[in-house]
Amino acid sequence: MLHDRNKILIESIKRLLRRGAVSHLRKIVNKTHAADLSVVFNSLSISNQRNLFAMIKDPEQKGALFSELDENTLLGFIEEMDLDDIVEILELMPSDDVADLIGKLPEEKSDAILEKMKKEESEEVEDLLRYKDDTAGGIMVPDFIALREDATAKEAIESLQKEHMDVEMPFYLYVVDDYGKLAGVSSLRQLVVVPPETPLKNFMTTDVFSVQTDMDQEEVAKIVANYNILAVPVVDETNKLVGIVTVDDVIDIFREEATEDILRMAGVGEEFVETQSILRSTKIRLPWLFASCIGGIAAFFVIGRFEGSLSKFTYLAAFIPVIMGMGGNIGTQSSTIVVRGLATGRLNIRHFWSVVLKELTIGLILGFVYGMVIGVVTQAQFSRAALAVAVGLAVLLSMSVAALVGSMVPMLFARINIDPAVATGPFVTTSIDIISVFFYFQIATTLLGI
Amino acid sequence: MLHDRNKILIESIKRLLRRGAVSHLRKIVNKTHAADLSVVFNSLSISNQRNLFAMIKDPEQKGALFSELDENTLLGFIEEMDLDDIVEILELMPSDDVADLIGKLPEEKSDAILEKMKKEESEEVEDLLRYKDDTAGGIMVPDFIALREDATAKEAIESLQKEHMDVEMPFYLYVVDDYGKLAGVSSLRQLVVVPPETPLKNFMTTDVFSVQTDMDQEEVAKIVANYNILAVPVVDETNKLVGIVTVDDVIDIFREEATEDILRMAGVGEEFVETQSILRSTKIRLPWLFASCIGGIAAFFVIGRFEGSLSKFTYLAAFIPVIMGMGGNIGTQSSTIVVRGLATGRLNIRHFWSVVLKELTIGLILGFVYGMVIGVVTQAQFSRAALAVAVGLAVLLSMSVAALVGSMVPMLFARINIDPAVATGPFVTTSIDIISVFFYFQIATTLLGI
Repeated sequence: MLHDRNKILIESIKRLLRRGAVSHLRKIVNKTHAADLSVVFNSLSISNQRNLFAMIKDPEQKGALFSELDENTLLGFIEEMDLDDIVEILELMPSDDVADLIGKLPEEKSDAILEKMKKEESEEVEDLLRYKDDTAGGIMVPDFIALREDATAKEAIESLQKEHMDVEMPFYLYVVDDYGKLAGVSSLRQLVVVPPETPLKNFMTTDVFSVQTDMDQEEVAKIVANYNILAVPVVDETNKLVGIVTVDDVIDIFREEATEDILRMAGVGEEFVETQSILRSTKIRLPWLFASCIGGIAAFFVIGRFEGSLSKFTYLAAFIPVIMGMGGNIGTQSSTIVVRGLATGRLNIRHFWSVVLKELTIGLILGFVYGMVIGVVTQAQFSRAALAVAVGLAVLLSMSVAALVGSMVPMLFARINIDPAVATGPFVTTSIDIISVFFYFQIATTLLGI
Repeated sequence: MLHDRNKILIESIKRLLRRGAVSHLRKIVNKTHAADLSVVFNSLSISNQRNLFAMIKDPEQKGALFSELDENTLLGFIEEMDLDDIVEILELMPSDDVADLIGKLPEEKSDAILEKMKKEESEEVEDLLRYKDDTAGGIMVPDFIALREDATAKEAIESLQKEHMDVEMPFYLYVVDDYGKLAGVSSLRQLVVVPPETPLKNFMTTDVFSVQTDMDQEEVAKIVANYNILAVPVVDETNKLVGIVTVDDVIDIFREEATEDILRMAGVGEEFVETQSILRSTKIRLPWLFASCIGGIAAFFVIGRFEGSLSKFTYLAAFIPVIMGMGGNIGTQSSTIVVRGLATGRLNIRHFWSVVLKELTIGLILGFVYGMVIGVVTQAQFSRAALAVAVGLAVLLSMSVAALVGSMVPMLFARINIDPAVATGPFVTTSIDIISVFFYFQIATTLLGI
């Protein structure tokens, strides 16, 4: 429904642009949520994007739109903008979004922008740029509410009213000691339910979850999700409070990480269709397919060894696809379950043997079922029991081995700290192909005596 | 690091259990966060789970643990518990978690529990049970703060202090009219920054995002994520406020949906290794493999048509794996990119032709590269140009067709409103197999004149 609503919005804005209905358009762009507006912008031509953007009055709305736009749309857009206009908008955006953007601009441009910004703002941004993109430091916002432990609830509320109007999501109030080190936390809620003169130290929670600036973003996201908190404080190596990571960023991280995992499993690296050129996409995918190429060539030599048998009974070749296909598909099933189980924490490498044994059992059962099916079809076609048994056995073996390899490999990778998502896709399927083909010909030549 | 910390916790609890260090254990279980405790429970034997559980003093902590435990662990655990003990704990849990649990119990047990619960609590739970699991109604909590528009900021704060102590995540205060219909919203923050006597209607936002009880949970999650809000109000068909969906549930939904997508793409339905029996897993996977079985048998007949050529030149069979493998892998890459692009909203079915053309181009480029590589290897092995060209061409064709099919099929499925995740996996790879094998033999017999 969100999708339908956006579709209607896009259609009507396009219609109004064609008709040049400026006053109507102006009304829409100024009252539409920036998240929806960004979807509209993505489906407009550059010139229409510029026209529409010029109609936004409120610089805050411009900033919000900048925060929401896709990287590529935004970069293309900013390229032709006047430096002063860019700076005016950036100064109204959360500094983590500004740092993200600045980090992607060519160096001369980013230097020029940072120079033009107010010193306080540019320092915040430069601080953030020091951290790697995918760490707590890289995703935190440096705006948070921090007070001393002697401050009373009333003073805290007053400071909320006066000083902290620009804090993005103020639901927690952090308490720091004389050196800026994190000492405790209070929720906004606690603030209003205690008597006004109570000092923070009397009701703050001292058992605060915090993360260090260099913690991986996925780890940070897991902490926020596991403990159902709305923000986690980020501290430097001396436990000094330097920022917070909020739950809305955590949602983005999970979506991003799931996408990365999925693409990695298919051997597409982190490519994404619409943000990359054909050449770049090709480059990313090329090496992944190399595994499959080498595997294919290896299978070629395996089959070559059985040339003699093949020349005596050509029909053997016709069973190659079904044996490879059944093995490949059940192998993908097993490895996917394991990889995703490990990623979500539902599976643990300590469960190694129970998982592998379970998958092997499933592989044996399904291999038996489909071995029977394909064996019966073979018998019906050729009326040659030895062949039917050979093909059926090959399917059984191929499927069991595939389930075994498909579940073991990602577990082993996880154990030696290699991302198991990499282990599926080309690598697993290719090795299953070779093993399956080899066993098939070995069984067939033995049983048929050729 | 979260993982490491939990590992240490598990190890030390196991050690203490072996040593029977009750007082030490008691201290740990009562001060550890329920989310961490649930991880510990998952790796203990049932009898140790019971021992440890008996050491928890605070019924609130017991409730928090129930909310965190895996479905299967929890159901096994509850089976042997006294009805009164269960009820005591359930009454301290958020009613959405209680409804989730009750919905999974056998009917006699759930009826007995509901009967024993306080009327007010059991009514809330029964209300929730009316909604489907994966809709806004099924995931909402019925505890929220709702006030009339004439109430002042001061009165609102007072009601927070007195009445709403049990609200799970109180960051928004909803404003309703005389009929309980949603009229506006104020943040807790606004409440403390306006003068105390200001009535809510003067500062509330009237432009509230709300969702209907029957909206799909994924849709709800997207709204919360897109608009960066912490909770979204849920209304019934008359716009009456009935609950809220909070951001912590949204995170769970995204993780769940990503997992579902991944598993569906691999043709594993929604199976998950550790929560299902081997028999059930087998049942779920069986039909998915049927597509691959039928495809394999079809490929068998395709190859059968070329028996004459094969008998003249047996080595043709040895190239089947490499041609199938290259096509299958690039097809999976293309379909994965499209499926994930559609799921995250980065791709749209309106981009049909640009996406398909891009994938086809990539398929042609990569097909050319690997066609050359495999052709050269063939030439080196056989010194027979016609064969090398035939194999190279077959690889090129197989990879291009695979990229085309892999990108088109999920787009078409999305257009006719079938989940595109279903389209990948067995279906796409199997059809690519058959097409590849057919073209390969056609080209080879033509060029080699056999």
